[in-house]
Amino acid sequence: MGKVLVFGHKNPDTDSITAAISLAYLKQQLGMDAEAVRLGSISGETAYALSQFGFEAPRLIEKAAPEAQQVILVDHNEKQQSVDDLDDVQVIEVVDHHRIANFQTADPLYYRAEPVGCTATILNKLYKEHGVEIPKNIAGLMLSAIISDSLLFKSPTFTEQDRVAAEELAAIADVDAHVYGLEMLKAGADLSGKSLEELVSLDAKEFTMGGAKVEIAQVNAIDVNDVMSRQAELEVLLNSVIEEKGLSLFLFAVTDILNNDSTVIALGTAAERACAAFNVALTNNTAILKGVVSRKKQIVPVLTEALK
Amino acid sequence: MGKVLVFGHKNPDTDSITAAISLAYLKQQLGMDAEAVRLGSISGETAYALSQFGFEAPRLIEKAAPEAQQVILVDHNEKQQSVDDLDDVQVIEVVDHHRIANFQTADPLYYRAEPVGCTATILNKLYKEHGVEIPKNIAGLMLSAIISDSLLFKSPTFTEQDRVAAEELAAIADVDAHVYGLEMLKAGADLSGKSLEELVSLDAKEFTMGGAKVEIAQVNAIDVNDVMSRQAELEVLLNSVIEEKGLSLFLFAVTDILNNDSTVIALGTAAERACAAFNVALTNNTAILKGVVSRKKQIVPVLTEALK
Repeated sequence: MGKVLVFGHKNPDTDSITAAISLAYLKQQLGMDAEAVRLGSISGETAYALSQFGFEAPRLIEKAAPEAQQVILVDHNEKQQSVDDLDDVQVIEVVDHHRIANFQTADPLYYRAEPVGCTATILNKLYKEHGVEIPKNIAGLMLSAIISDSLLFKSPTFTEQDRVAAEELAAIADVDAHVYGLEMLKAGADLSGKSLEELVSLDAKEFTMGGAKVEIAQVNAIDVNDVMSRQAELEVLLNSVIEEKGLSLFLFAVTDILNNDSTVIALGTAAERACAAFNVALTNNTAILKGVVSRKKQIVPVLTEALK
Repeated sequence: MGKVLVFGHKNPDTDSITAAISLAYLKQQLGMDAEAVRLGSISGETAYALSQFGFEAPRLIEKAAPEAQQVILVDHNEKQQSVDDLDDVQVIEVVDHHRIANFQTADPLYYRAEPVGCTATILNKLYKEHGVEIPKNIAGLMLSAIISDSLLFKSPTFTEQDRVAAEELAAIADVDAHVYGLEMLKAGADLSGKSLEELVSLDAKEFTMGGAKVEIAQVNAIDVNDVMSRQAELEVLLNSVIEEKGLSLFLFAVTDILNNDSTVIALGTAAERACAAFNVALTNNTAILKGVVSRKKQIVPVLTEALK
């Protein structure tokens, strides 16, 4: 068996990057020639976490097939979120915590998904099941992922199993999760120096919902107005993405990490219908979704139902 | 949470029936109101296994939604192999050992697939992971499933992990796997008293391959000629299924359980192309596939590649 590439989704967040590193390390201990790679730029938050625990960013790849026949997906399964040439390689394993959609294989594979808040929580179990000790610095990365995906344990995606994993990992990494976590989130919410293009693409994911193509981007902010003051310019950009990709909806969500609401800009033919699904009216293409911080748990299911 | 129905695929084989019973029991021990049900008739082989270990067949259902909001799938995931009203219920968990295709959810779920020969091998792990003891008679059912899926440990789908599970389960069930297994397979290969309609539908599965609808049915036999002597009548029946369902291919495989070859009847517009993929010529609509006993491992991947 040749080299196996391990990677998370495009526009990688902290979970996608750290899960690739953490699972590749586990696979190496089990004798596999596994390498963690990434499909996009590292966010400020992820850079902070990598630096705190002494890691370099994994190597960026554009395509997988030129260098490997087999791949392992972490933190995603939907084809449009994965490497462009996914059809040219064999997916031998998936470790994920999202819905399953637009994913198909010709052969049986190892697939491990659980409805928890973070891939790291599942990886914590896999280390135990294989009897492999988690190194201190990898535990730090895994903890960072749980903090990131749960907005410091506040998202409705955060489960009891995530809480247990976070406690175990904080103990191994020997850090105070709340102190470290707030610093990490602040590093990620620092939007100064970010271009509009970066804001829109940094954490954007594409979905197919009842035949409609939908893109949902999310940025964390300490002051939502830092972003919304540039609404007019943002809309020009979002509309150009809609046209280019043939989207029915672009939902751009700015999530306030201190008070846990999201302000959205919704554009596209399905924008009215999308906001109606949240029982809010679209005013000047924007709406505030109270208490909504999770794309996966609070946005995708609502839109999937509304657009089916 | 209300009742959760647990079921395997349509035209259930021994693994689908016993996995539903075994997983429902595990879930009950963990506090879930789970009930094993089935989507079709019990084969002679399965009836033998159930009777040997003191079980009744699970209840037959036509639809799931009238009695439950949530379901657990075992031994399958492809929608066309599942309950007709799958879209009207929530799939909260899947335990399977097949490729993933034509499967989609709106929400995250628990999905456990491994590339092993039998669902029971994965269930054996799940019992351990949850610290639940496997009762003697359930161990007997799980062993029966491994024997069935591996044609008494001879199929290429049979892995080292299946071997370990079979040994553990035989010890708990306190049976000689080879003696018991051959009796069980013979009970299943007794085709006397089976109508042609039963032969064709007993273990038939439908697949979508590159846009083509394909049905593959398999029966085990001790004497292949018992079946092939009725080829002319079989073809009439297969052609009527092709027309009714709009299939591009119906592959009907008669597997010799003693010497491990399969004789196939291939009909439909893709029949020539299908047999070419196996490097055999179709003569009088039939061909012998030497050493082919596994639909999943030796037939589906070859056809998926050929028809894509």
